[in-house]
Amino acid sequence: MARNRPGLPAPQCDPESSGQALFALVKRLFPICRSITGEGVRETLRILRESVPLVIHEVATGTPVFDWEVPKEWNIRDAYIKDMSGRRIVDFNNSSLHVVSYSIPVRATLSLEALRSHLHTLPEHPDWIPYRTSYWNENWGFCLPHALLQQMQDAAYDVCIDSTLQDGHLTYAEYLIPGESEDEVLLFSHTCHPSMCNDNCTGLAVTAALAHRLSERRPRYSYRFVWAPGTIGSLTWLSRNRETVGRIRHGLVLTGLGDPGGFTYKRSRRGDAAIDRIVPWVLRGRDPQARIDDFSVYGYDERQFCSPGFNLPVGRLTRTPYGEYPQYHTSADDLCFIAPDQLAEALAVLLDIVDVIEVGERRYVNTSPHGEPRLGKRGLFRPTGGVGLSGREAALLWMLNLSDGSHSVIDIAERANLDFTTLASAISDLVACGLLI
Amino acid sequence: MARNRPGLPAPQCDPESSGQALFALVKRLFPICRSITGEGVRETLRILRESVPLVIHEVATGTPVFDWEVPKEWNIRDAYIKDMSGRRIVDFNNSSLHVVSYSIPVRATLSLEALRSHLHTLPEHPDWIPYRTSYWNENWGFCLPHALLQQMQDAAYDVCIDSTLQDGHLTYAEYLIPGESEDEVLLFSHTCHPSMCNDNCTGLAVTAALAHRLSERRPRYSYRFVWAPGTIGSLTWLSRNRETVGRIRHGLVLTGLGDPGGFTYKRSRRGDAAIDRIVPWVLRGRDPQARIDDFSVYGYDERQFCSPGFNLPVGRLTRTPYGEYPQYHTSADDLCFIAPDQLAEALAVLLDIVDVIEVGERRYVNTSPHGEPRLGKRGLFRPTGGVGLSGREAALLWMLNLSDGSHSVIDIAERANLDFTTLASAISDLVACGLLI
Amino acid sequence: MARNRPGLPAPQCDPESSGQALFALVKRLFPICRSITGEGVRETLRILRESVPLVIHEVATGTPVFDWEVPKEWNIRDAYIKDMSGRRIVDFNNSSLHVVSYSIPVRATLSLEALRSHLHTLPEHPDWIPYRTSYWNENWGFCLPHALLQQMQDAAYDVCIDSTLQDGHLTYAEYLIPGESEDEVLLFSHTCHPSMCNDNCTGLAVTAALAHRLSERRPRYSYRFVWAPGTIGSLTWLSRNRETVGRIRHGLVLTGLGDPGGFTYKRSRRGDAAIDRIVPWVLRGRDPQARIDDFSVYGYDERQFCSPGFNLPVGRLTRTPYGEYPQYHTSADDLCFIAPDQLAEALAVLLDIVDVIEVGERRYVNTSPHGEPRLGKRGLFRPTGGVGLSGREAALLWMLNLSDGSHSVIDIAERANLDFTTLASAISDLVACGLLI
Repeated sequence: MARNRPGLPAPQCDPESSGQALFALVKRLFPICRSITGEGVRETLRILRESVPLVIHEVATGTPVFDWEVPKEWNIRDAYIKDMSGRRIVDFNNSSLHVVSYSIPVRATLSLEALRSHLHTLPEHPDWIPYRTSYWNENWGFCLPHALLQQMQDAAYDVCIDSTLQDGHLTYAEYLIPGESEDEVLLFSHTCHPSMCNDNCTGLAVTAALAHRLSERRPRYSYRFVWAPGTIGSLTWLSRNRETVGRIRHGLVLTGLGDPGGFTYKRSRRGDAAIDRIVPWVLRGRDPQARIDDFSVYGYDERQFCSPGFNLPVGRLTRTPYGEYPQYHTSADDLCFIAPDQLAEALAVLLDIVDVIEVGERRYVNTSPHGEPRLGKRGLFRPTGGVGLSGREAALLWMLNLSDGSHSVIDIAERANLDFTTLASAISDLVACGLLI
Repeated sequence: MARNRPGLPAPQCDPESSGQALFALVKRLFPICRSITGEGVRETLRILRESVPLVIHEVATGTPVFDWEVPKEWNIRDAYIKDMSGRRIVDFNNSSLHVVSYSIPVRATLSLEALRSHLHTLPEHPDWIPYRTSYWNENWGFCLPHALLQQMQDAAYDVCIDSTLQDGHLTYAEYLIPGESEDEVLLFSHTCHPSMCNDNCTGLAVTAALAHRLSERRPRYSYRFVWAPGTIGSLTWLSRNRETVGRIRHGLVLTGLGDPGGFTYKRSRRGDAAIDRIVPWVLRGRDPQARIDDFSVYGYDERQFCSPGFNLPVGRLTRTPYGEYPQYHTSADDLCFIAPDQLAEALAVLLDIVDVIEVGERRYVNTSPHGEPRLGKRGLFRPTGGVGLSGREAALLWMLNLSDGSHSVIDIAERANLDFTTLASAISDLVACGLLI
Repeated sequence: MARNRPGLPAPQCDPESSGQALFALVKRLFPICRSITGEGVRETLRILRESVPLVIHEVATGTPVFDWEVPKEWNIRDAYIKDMSGRRIVDFNNSSLHVVSYSIPVRATLSLEALRSHLHTLPEHPDWIPYRTSYWNENWGFCLPHALLQQMQDAAYDVCIDSTLQDGHLTYAEYLIPGESEDEVLLFSHTCHPSMCNDNCTGLAVTAALAHRLSERRPRYSYRFVWAPGTIGSLTWLSRNRETVGRIRHGLVLTGLGDPGGFTYKRSRRGDAAIDRIVPWVLRGRDPQARIDDFSVYGYDERQFCSPGFNLPVGRLTRTPYGEYPQYHTSADDLCFIAPDQLAEALAVLLDIVDVIEVGERRYVNTSPHGEPRLGKRGLFRPTGGVGLSGREAALLWMLNLSDGSHSVIDIAERANLDFTTLASAISDLVACGLLI
């Protein structure tokens, strides 16, 4: 396993089992050198397939994808920079970040001056390795700590990138949990990032665990999980499913779920889709300070799902948004940056979101709408009068008052500022005694 | 007359006559033991009938009322707890609050232990008697100061509740002031609360005075006053008037009008009914800090008028809302908690509200809409130019500018932030010179 | 030239040429005694005609104008108050403000007591001369510093107003720049104020310069400039153009553009007209604190354009609004109160507003709406991935994302919080490569 901050102690974790299991999965995925194509993606998907029987798709290089096409497949075996003594001062085996993704093969001896334009560092974080790519512009390069660059003083260096860039395939995976309805919930997580934890081993691990948990259910909606490379992967999936994406009623792009920050939901381009109300309601039930951002053109694959030709109801759930933590797209986004409890909480949030997706748009009807029905005779109200309402009694009255066929459960929850547990219990009792249908 | 805080001096009041008259009426109503049925309600309505010729309705026990039915009629002659020396330590004659409303008859000698589950106190206010009811669950009980309970140490007590609970009637009253239109304004106040002033002798006294004042007019709308017990009373009235409640264009539940707090308006379930704009405008003209609450399922009889099967444009006007003052539903809600000036102000506010109801939705039309008409030649504008507009001139210009047939008077008042007096005067002048029709 | 604060040094100005030119024009216009009719207006329009070939219109006294009529024409040659020694203590030649506008002729010897009701002063600013008018009420009067009034102690004074008030004409001017469309942009500035700089020599000078600058273009819209007296002038223009004012798509009343305060835009009566979004966007691009006021019935000629019979999309642009600076309508609104830079900035703002008017409502369409198009292959995106977006890249993505035929340029600018320069450049590049049409 590649370690990108070898001097640090291993994270001290003793989480509850689910968080521990998620963390262990991240730990397995972390060292793999992923990119938008190649064996690293395939190995990643094979690991996820241990959780759920996902289906792997291969799309040939050159396949047209809207304004793009599937690129050549990139694979890499080894890469290094050796100093004049023959010592590997930069070694791909230590971190997959050391090589600019999609670097073409190179084997040369170069002066530092000639080499310098191929070296990427972060002067403001001299011990960290940056993450860089050059997918659409044939080039090569190394990423290294700035402190190391400053020590390089030899007259010449041997550089080697033992990669291949040739016709092959783009690989992605799907997993569908059929529901009562063909209407779908899309859950997307990108597979293209190499050895970084939060972005996006956490998204891969949490979505796989969510898929495993939902596979035990027969939900109302069908749930479609897609694991694909960023941008070209979501575009490829969209181009192969143009006829059926209209089934998507709700969707989420999921990434960055392990860092210590609070949750952030980014609204879909529509801004008023059901998912844009469901996720904020769930988040605020846990954390009144949860952050809700408007849609913007910056970001992950919601950019494609929310392009004007599709305009799907797809939002994005993360903890701290990309680019707002210094570890973003560097080697410091490692196993120490995330924690099992944070992964477990993300999974719990998603399970809550699924619960609300299942029931949130339902419009119940009060069968006794003229005046309040007499709840006391049904055992739903305290017998002694003169004191205030309990929260549970309030939930009963709100459901009855607003269940006129024009208010959904999420409408009522927002209006009455009720949490999901209390409301779900009130609905259950009112349905049981026939006051709601 | 029962006095529930006998040690306190009588309130020192020297109000202006209207406030004094209202206070005197509250003082007469206060000692009566009201409940949702019984002689106390009838005695109360007979007193209100001295103000206006209201019509009393009796509805027999067992009459179906939506999901409910009219309960048995409850009456009470006497009740006490005697200690072993034969001394009445709790005596119904001192406060009608001492008995849980709708207590079934009881006559027994009980140990304190056996008695305790029938005793209600307020540990946080040890000198106050709480108000409790048990309408729908046959039971009995006493309410007493917690300090008194703590002194009870005898081996046994004689308890007596000399009540009856048997088939009879539910009693309510109506009074209709016919207007030019059959469209109605509903004014509702509950009659079921025993010896508490703010809740609701103040509502009864102020609505009776309002009815008396309006009876001298021939208004545009018809004004219907209903005095009935809470919940089952408004439900009964609704069930007997299902065919005609559609005439209600505006409505208010009125209670809690005597305490020292500012006014609070609670919006109707619709939230955007005319009454939901009229009352806030009037209140804010008197007090910019007046509180406006959204509809909620907590509260008084607006819960029934605003149930989904009716969804009437009925809001609620109080001073401090129920439950937000410690004296609420206790013996401390007495004559010292209210004041004549506060009652007089409530009546004045309601008379203003009626004035605005009468004219607020009217849409005048500017007969000279192309440019501003020349107000100076009509004596409505100052002759010398170069200085600013007076408030009165501004009101003239706002009425002319927005009276295009699509803005009501209340629209214009809100838009221009004008008070009712200035606006009414401007309307009068513009109508007089033919610039508004 | 009349100087109304003769003791003050001349303003020290060394502005850039455009501001200097504007200031020089204000300086020429300042001493002229304008009113709602008369030779002062004609002289003013002749000076503006040096900038653009405006067309002068004369409308005869007595011509009906909606609820008004064109008044008699007023002209004045001389006016003074002489003390007993024959010295002119108030002399019209020193400031045109000394005479109440539209004063009828008078020649008399009056006691101070008899004279006093004809004297106007500002006790709170004892050295300033107020501005007063009596257009519609035949009267006469003098305006003078309060300090001077307090020194007047003679037994009698000779007063003379050598004016004429007789049948004649109301004079206004128009200048039309034809565009591709007959849809018009109306730019209005009032001509009736005598020797005050900010109100309104600045409006006259800046609109004349704007007209000159636009005359070199062939814009999309036709631009119509109107210079006319306040109230009766805009009414007269409206009454003579009733059939064609429907062409006005955007309009601005322009005045008070030279004082040191920030810009203030007053919305049209509609409140949601395109001009109500365009001007705030331009202003906030320069100054996030720029002030945006709702429409009100107070103000300048927007009162007529926004009367309910017209309800035109005409807002008002000023710096500090009238009445909010102490110099307003006094002799202190002089050349020292304004500055060349402030005039130049006002012209620049108006040129920006014109640019946005021309393009702001256009709805571009993304020709590659399914997913993001590949900007890199068109040279519009950085080749190396892993870093954030530049502002320019963001502008490209926002234009592509929202150009779905339902969002105008101003919609996109507001949504994405983009400044005009960046957005205009992005539009240009995307149109050039065929991604937008």
